[in-house]
Amino acid sequence: MNALRGEDIRAQARSGRLTVPTCGLAPDFLQANLVIVPEGLAGDFHRFCRLNPKPCPILDVTEPGAWEPRHAAPGADVRTDLPRYRVYRRGALVEEPTDITHLWQKDFVAFLLGCSFSFEAAMQRAGLSVRHLEESCNVPMYRTSLPCSPAGPFSGPLVVSMRPLTPAQAIEAVVITSRFPQAHGAPVHFGDPLAIGISDLARPDFGDAVTIRIGEVPVFWACGVTPQAILMEAKPEFAITHSPGCMFVTDLLAED
Amino acid sequence: MNALRGEDIRAQARSGRLTVPTCGLAPDFLQANLVIVPEGLAGDFHRFCRLNPKPCPILDVTEPGAWEPRHAAPGADVRTDLPRYRVYRRGALVEEPTDITHLWQKDFVAFLLGCSFSFEAAMQRAGLSVRHLEESCNVPMYRTSLPCSPAGPFSGPLVVSMRPLTPAQAIEAVVITSRFPQAHGAPVHFGDPLAIGISDLARPDFGDAVTIRIGEVPVFWACGVTPQAILMEAKPEFAITHSPGCMFVTDLLAED
Repeated sequence: MNALRGEDIRAQARSGRLTVPTCGLAPDFLQANLVIVPEGLAGDFHRFCRLNPKPCPILDVTEPGAWEPRHAAPGADVRTDLPRYRVYRRGALVEEPTDITHLWQKDFVAFLLGCSFSFEAAMQRAGLSVRHLEESCNVPMYRTSLPCSPAGPFSGPLVVSMRPLTPAQAIEAVVITSRFPQAHGAPVHFGDPLAIGISDLARPDFGDAVTIRIGEVPVFWACGVTPQAILMEAKPEFAITHSPGCMFVTDLLAED
Repeated sequence: MNALRGEDIRAQARSGRLTVPTCGLAPDFLQANLVIVPEGLAGDFHRFCRLNPKPCPILDVTEPGAWEPRHAAPGADVRTDLPRYRVYRRGALVEEPTDITHLWQKDFVAFLLGCSFSFEAAMQRAGLSVRHLEESCNVPMYRTSLPCSPAGPFSGPLVVSMRPLTPAQAIEAVVITSRFPQAHGAPVHFGDPLAIGISDLARPDFGDAVTIRIGEVPVFWACGVTPQAILMEAKPEFAITHSPGCMFVTDLLAED
C-alpha cells in the first residue's frame, strides 16, 4: 500500500494546497469523475449511467442537497474536496473555481463515476508502459460512431481513450483492466480506428496525440469524458463537473 | 452441468464404442493431450512443460510404469481410456491403435496436458462463434517464430491455434480464456501473422484453413500440438500420444 490515502488527497484539496491533477496520487484508491446536476435532471442522468456502465461506472450518487458521498467516502465534501471544478451554464464553461461551496443549491445531486487512473496504475504495476504518462501529456480521446443507450435528454456517441500497445501487451492489458469494472473495465476495441468512426488518430477530440510505434496497435477503452460530453450537449441550465484530471479520490480500494 | 461425465466418456473409449474425437463431449470436464515417454526422457520433458506452461499446462504426470492418473482421474487407465492413440518410433508414426495395453512398458511415464476444447466450450456459452466448429473442420495451427524455452533434447518453436474474431469479440475471448490457465489461457498474439513468423494463414502447418471475414482479426493461442511437435523433432526411440482430437477426458472441472 502506498502511504497516502484518499482522505489525505481530499484534505490537501480542501485546504487549497492541491489545485492540480490527481493522476498518480494515492494509487491504491479509486478516483472518480464528478458530475453535479439539479434534481430535475438527476433521474435521467442516473438512468443514462446505469444504461452505459462501461463509460459511466457509478461509484456513488448523493441525495438531493447532500454533499457527502456516503458510500465512496463517508465524511467527505464534494463541494471542497476536489482540486478544481468546472461550472457550466447552458452548456458553456463559465468558471473554474477550486471550491464550489458558494454555488451549492439545495436541489443538487452529485454523481461519482469511475475513472481510468486506477487501471493505469495496475497496468504500470504489471510492467506495461502507458504512453501518455511516458510522454507527460493527457491521454488522447476520440468521439466514436458507437452510440450510447439514450435516457431522456441524454444521448450521443461513446468517447474512448486510446493507449498504444503491442498485441502481447494488449492481451495482458485486457486481462488486467477486465478486473476493474468500476474503472471502465476491458477495452471496447483495438486496431482499425475507422471501424469505430475515428478518422485520424493524430487529431484527438480531447487530450493529446501520442506516438504509436511500429508493431503497436491502438487499444480503445470507454472513457469518463463520455457522460460530460453528453451532459454538455443537453445544455442544462446549470451543471458542475471536476476540471480535467482533477478527480475526487475515494476511500474505495482500487483492487476490490 | 451436462449429464455426461469424464468417466462416462472414458468408459465408452475403454469398451471400444468410442473411437472418434472427443470434441464437445462432457464439456464441463477438462480434456487433456496425452504424451507417454520412457523414464529416461521424462525428466527433461517434465521440465520442458514446466518452462512452457502456456502450450504445455500440466494436469497430471504418472509415476513410472503406472497407468493411473491419480490427480486428474483416479481409477482411470491411460492405456485404454482414449478413443485412439498414435505410436511413434524414432519420430515416425508406426501405428494408430485404440488400445495400447500390449505396448505398455514398466518405464513409461504419461503426461496429461491441458487442451483448448474447454475454453472453446466457454466461448460458445458466451455467445462467441468458434469458426472451425462452425465450418466443421479442425482448428488451423501454425508453427511460429517464437521459441519455446528449451530443456535437454526438447527445443523448438511455439505452435499456435488460430480463431478469427472481431476486435470486440476478441476482447471478450481474452477475458474468458484468461480464466482457463489449464487450457492454454489467454491468447499470445492477434493481428499481423508475420509478427510471429506466420507467412500464410491460408496454409496452416496442422489442421484446416478457416474463413476470416471482413472486420475480423486472427487471434492466436498457444497450442497443445507444441509439445508433440517438439517431441517428434527429438526423435525418441519410442513415444505414444493421443490421436489428434481423441483426448483423455479428466474428472477435473473446466471452470475450477
